[in-house]
Amino acid sequence: MRIFAMDTSGPVAGVALYEDGVLTHEIVASHGLTHSQTIMPMADDALSAAGIRPGDVDLFAAVAGPGSFTGVRIGVCTVKALAHAAQKPCLGLDALEVLAMGASGFPGTVCPILDARRGQVYCAAFDASQMGKRPVRLLPDRAVALEEFLETLPGEGQLLFLGDGLKAHMPAVERILGRRALRAPAHMACIRPGAACVLAGLLKDEAVNYLELQPIYLRASQAERERLAKEERERNGGN
Amino acid sequence: MRIFAMDTSGPVAGVALYEDGVLTHEIVASHGLTHSQTIMPMADDALSAAGIRPGDVDLFAAVAGPGSFTGVRIGVCTVKALAHAAQKPCLGLDALEVLAMGASGFPGTVCPILDARRGQVYCAAFDASQMGKRPVRLLPDRAVALEEFLETLPGEGQLLFLGDGLKAHMPAVERILGRRALRAPAHMACIRPGAACVLAGLLKDEAVNYLELQPIYLRASQAERERLAKEERERNGGN
Repeated sequence: MRIFAMDTSGPVAGVALYEDGVLTHEIVASHGLTHSQTIMPMADDALSAAGIRPGDVDLFAAVAGPGSFTGVRIGVCTVKALAHAAQKPCLGLDALEVLAMGASGFPGTVCPILDARRGQVYCAAFDASQMGKRPVRLLPDRAVALEEFLETLPGEGQLLFLGDGLKAHMPAVERILGRRALRAPAHMACIRPGAACVLAGLLKDEAVNYLELQPIYLRASQAERERLAKEERERNGGN
Repeated sequence: MRIFAMDTSGPVAGVALYEDGVLTHEIVASHGLTHSQTIMPMADDALSAAGIRPGDVDLFAAVAGPGSFTGVRIGVCTVKALAHAAQKPCLGLDALEVLAMGASGFPGTVCPILDARRGQVYCAAFDASQMGKRPVRLLPDRAVALEEFLETLPGEGQLLFLGDGLKAHMPAVERILGRRALRAPAHMACIRPGAACVLAGLLKDEAVNYLELQPIYLRASQAERERLAKEERERNGGN
């Protein structure tokens, strides 16, 4: 089975190709470049190096959020287009679960945090201790203040933090939790499209038609918030 | 600090670039293509995408074996050339230790195995349970029959197998060790140049001049074995 996965949900852009249990190609790039410009050449590199075309892929997976609104849309739309063109099923993966999959085997609690701006993190918690198995969810995905997230974490055991939220929030995490909080090394700290391929393989029975692939937003986008605020002001305009 | 790592020691070719604790680019490819043809374009992709030149890198690391003789030479020579041209230090990393680094945090014994042909595996064992730290070596690198390696492993705890030896040897490992033996998922099973960058960062004080960078061979190459056998025959020719 050939699985192609793509991630543009955050600062990192990545693609990976997985064939019969082996990762045959993976590219991960984090240079602050525009995902919409870099992602298709990366996809093309991975497929061409394997000597295959989109029609030879059996399952397309997109890291579908939570994350940057624009980034999530680029990844989801690109995977929809590939799955449509190739007439193959696709799958939207949770960015926080893909991060946990990347730390498979860790014996404590895996705590992915993504920078959600506005003083919040996208966060969740998983037990990923079963090597190579789907991480077991301990807390739902949420967009909350870091302190609110930390209060809900298990009171015992080591806590592994990973994700693009490390940069802004790890000093506060360490101040609040002390030695229980571990920081993932760089090769585990970011979303791995290779881990997305492995997770997609475990979830392949949940694959859908491209029309059904949905992004995972945890909050309304800025444009939506502004529209709602404007409507609210207009409704109250006469008062 | 900018670290560039390259691996061509086995079936996978890979490069990674790491900057101030963040992995900014990683490419891993396993298509049976010739490393000597693919590796420089991959290196060029990683450096160009970051907008830098070899002279902007502070430390070059090569996965220096054990592995394919030709593959090890390609990686070591290329990194020597880059370090020489850029006048920067370099470092040879042990392929088995880089594999263990990729499974950082695993609470049992990490057992990397590489297919050494001739009925042998290149193997070692590590305690990599300290997240993000250098794996602690439990057994030296050896080229031995699989069964001989398995007899030397700790008698208790879980054993995580990873490396390109999985394909040929995992069925035998599982038959002999049963449930204690775990198979690494695809995204952890192969040598990650990103993990090589992180390990190189931990070992940066051991960096050397390019003239001192040495490949890690555990056995004589086929050409050397044949020469020795021929000399032996010639010495015994008169008898």
